[in-house]
Amino acid sequence: MDDNIQLNAQGQLKHFLTIEGLSRALLTEILDTAESFAGMTEQRVKKVPLLRGKTIVNLFFENSTRTKTTFELAGTRLSADVLSMNIATSATAKGESLLDTIRNLEAMFVDMFVVRHAISGAAHFIAQHAAPHISVINAGDGQHAHPTQAMLDMFTIRQLKHDFTQLRVAIIGDILHSRVARSQIQALNTLGAAEVRVIAPKTLLPAEVESLGVTVSHSLGQGLRDIDVIIMLRLQKERMTTALLPSESEYFKCFGLTPEKLKLAKPDAIVMHPGPINRGVEIDSKVADGPQSVILRQVSNGVAVRMAIMSMAMQKQGAQG
Amino acid sequence: MDDNIQLNAQGQLKHFLTIEGLSRALLTEILDTAESFAGMTEQRVKKVPLLRGKTIVNLFFENSTRTKTTFELAGTRLSADVLSMNIATSATAKGESLLDTIRNLEAMFVDMFVVRHAISGAAHFIAQHAAPHISVINAGDGQHAHPTQAMLDMFTIRQLKHDFTQLRVAIIGDILHSRVARSQIQALNTLGAAEVRVIAPKTLLPAEVESLGVTVSHSLGQGLRDIDVIIMLRLQKERMTTALLPSESEYFKCFGLTPEKLKLAKPDAIVMHPGPINRGVEIDSKVADGPQSVILRQVSNGVAVRMAIMSMAMQKQGAQG
Amino acid sequence: MDDNIQLNAQGQLKHFLTIEGLSRALLTEILDTAESFAGMTEQRVKKVPLLRGKTIVNLFFENSTRTKTTFELAGTRLSADVLSMNIATSATAKGESLLDTIRNLEAMFVDMFVVRHAISGAAHFIAQHAAPHISVINAGDGQHAHPTQAMLDMFTIRQLKHDFTQLRVAIIGDILHSRVARSQIQALNTLGAAEVRVIAPKTLLPAEVESLGVTVSHSLGQGLRDIDVIIMLRLQKERMTTALLPSESEYFKCFGLTPEKLKLAKPDAIVMHPGPINRGVEIDSKVADGPQSVILRQVSNGVAVRMAIMSMAMQKQGAQG
Repeated sequence: MDDNIQLNAQGQLKHFLTIEGLSRALLTEILDTAESFAGMTEQRVKKVPLLRGKTIVNLFFENSTRTKTTFELAGTRLSADVLSMNIATSATAKGESLLDTIRNLEAMFVDMFVVRHAISGAAHFIAQHAAPHISVINAGDGQHAHPTQAMLDMFTIRQLKHDFTQLRVAIIGDILHSRVARSQIQALNTLGAAEVRVIAPKTLLPAEVESLGVTVSHSLGQGLRDIDVIIMLRLQKERMTTALLPSESEYFKCFGLTPEKLKLAKPDAIVMHPGPINRGVEIDSKVADGPQSVILRQVSNGVAVRMAIMSMAMQKQGAQG
Repeated sequence: MDDNIQLNAQGQLKHFLTIEGLSRALLTEILDTAESFAGMTEQRVKKVPLLRGKTIVNLFFENSTRTKTTFELAGTRLSADVLSMNIATSATAKGESLLDTIRNLEAMFVDMFVVRHAISGAAHFIAQHAAPHISVINAGDGQHAHPTQAMLDMFTIRQLKHDFTQLRVAIIGDILHSRVARSQIQALNTLGAAEVRVIAPKTLLPAEVESLGVTVSHSLGQGLRDIDVIIMLRLQKERMTTALLPSESEYFKCFGLTPEKLKLAKPDAIVMHPGPINRGVEIDSKVADGPQSVILRQVSNGVAVRMAIMSMAMQKQGAQG
Repeated sequence: MDDNIQLNAQGQLKHFLTIEGLSRALLTEILDTAESFAGMTEQRVKKVPLLRGKTIVNLFFENSTRTKTTFELAGTRLSADVLSMNIATSATAKGESLLDTIRNLEAMFVDMFVVRHAISGAAHFIAQHAAPHISVINAGDGQHAHPTQAMLDMFTIRQLKHDFTQLRVAIIGDILHSRVARSQIQALNTLGAAEVRVIAPKTLLPAEVESLGVTVSHSLGQGLRDIDVIIMLRLQKERMTTALLPSESEYFKCFGLTPEKLKLAKPDAIVMHPGPINRGVEIDSKVADGPQSVILRQVSNGVAVRMAIMSMAMQKQGAQG
């Protein structure tokens, strides 16, 4: 895919579809912009008028309460009008094509689409065909990318660990099917992490995974050594039935993060998870709720990071090339 | 039905239920008011404070993403608070009568109902029984009327063709079941169109259709001669099963608008469709996406025209007779 | 349950979970505050900026159009951002625990939860575990309490009858399963009503009902004597099947409020009902729509009373102990 579609003629962010092809400078600009919103969200009055009069449409073809809610809150706190479409009952259900739905919404003078779709490349497709004044944000497409999740993770890591170049980060779980992992790996490498290590059974790793710029471990015991940041992935329980995975309890025994396992990482390692967590499947409650967990901080940062990305994309619209 | 219910004692718009009984002056006032909103919707900040503090309730007993969305956007851009009720899960489902639901919402000091209902006359019924301070807008009732759709069509025609008295307009498709067609015919006749021609197989025309003020053709070839404006109707595929219609492909062969057929109309004829379109059923994609199509312009105008109607109805409330 | 959880260190309202344990002074403060909002809701511009920049989340695990709508309107008219979660499709459906859902929403810097849940004590549970800056409003939990409904009833009674100490109030219907009745009885006793009388068949009364502070009658004929305020409860038709009740028509014959029965109360008695009403089951239409009925006034007052409770709870947040 042509990733330059994400930038306008001046190299500024116009769409946010994937981490791939974005520069370290641009990712850093996003993190810096999010900084200012992070403080704001805790204030008594949590609104800024940056996007007043703009219309944002949430197009969630896949359900995701958490992501949809943070995007709604982010848009609302930027003072935009946010419209969440119920796709199941929409004209799409009457047989209208995705493109016709998009064209119609465009004609109503909306300014931004936030898209979540089960098919890889859906947000890209919409960005390619959208009118020039529209920004598209990818809120997760198939097994391809989930770039706003990756950026909120980067924000959380920088907040607590400061310098990416000193960090060894482990991503643990179903790397094969995870759009989150794909975007995290790209972001960490772009930001110069010392090492990105994936820890998973062979059946849950893509072929030639090293080509993504990671080191590989098949054992939690081995893999956690010297690690500063632990990123757990959610185990999609529906995959259990596909025989790709052993039983839930077997999985937990080998790859579930317990307090004992956690001790194998650096003593000040932080534990992250994109949520919603499966307690007792990929993570023990003692770890999820423990002092090294920053899972809820990730959620908080999610609002600020999405406000940053949305406002950057929208403010660069005028300069589109 | 008593159509004077639409006007207050000063003859100003209070409810908007049907085109029937409204004067050319009033329809023209709506079009003129919409003119000012049409420019506004393209601006950076798309909001005016006209209805700030007003509460609009969308009562959609029938699903319609496009119409519901434009009404939500129109209300929001007028700065009203817009509440969209999920009727399926509402108290109505607990067996509460429509009238009790209306009475309860009124008691919460809402100002306007936008009603879509499968039963002809539903909006009228609500307007007759609503408290004096309430305005009711018909967003489509059974096979009776869809007056805001007709007005956005009139707005689009005037924008591109200027003088109704010089125009021959063809409406093509299932006239029998179409509330859109009924409202369009009334509006075109009220605004003085030179000719309103309906083109349809006999099975899709009401008895004594000429009494509506139209000429009739049963052939697209014959019917498109000298036509300035072509309005395609959506083919309700569910009707296919009722034996009123030949097969889909047979229908397309006879009444589908193709580039070849389009050439039979005037060279500068415009093509309209209320959407969502059935590509390859009533209209060929080459026509729908071609240079004579104004289908997306209709959608854009839909927001402006609904803003005009909503603000007019609401501002006349005080003067209700 | 520890009801002091409802108050902050200064004894001010922080959560609103139950009438139990609240003082007459506090209930009176709520009624007085609602007074100012009651006038406001009829104005042309119905908004006050009291909660601008605050985020209220409606967590309705049980459906209730009327209650949900009034809370949405109340929040919106206080200028808060109101987010209504569709619980059925939320992460909770993916197996996330209630507490994890709450923790995540908290992390997004929301300020208030309005909770409706089929399990008694759900709102309490959330208040106990919520972060210190969060207020929780109980919008109905199981068969336990529905305190905002009780307060809007108290407001309506005070508006029309002024002095609680002179009043005899009858509550009629399924006392056994009614959270509304439970909260009404507590509120009436706290506000000093001369008598609270429950009228119901024995099968619909809790054991030792007198311990709630009520007198008991099993006959509408006897029970309505000297009554100033009649509160009808909604008959949950689903209970019909449980053999707790005779047939619908049998119930109506014994406990349905007809114009004839109504004459047995004081001539200026008012008739109340929390809605939605079952016409011809617990109440005759002639009574529901008659001059003594204040049912729609209750609905109107519901918005004002909820605005009062929400703004009081939110403004005391800073002072939390």
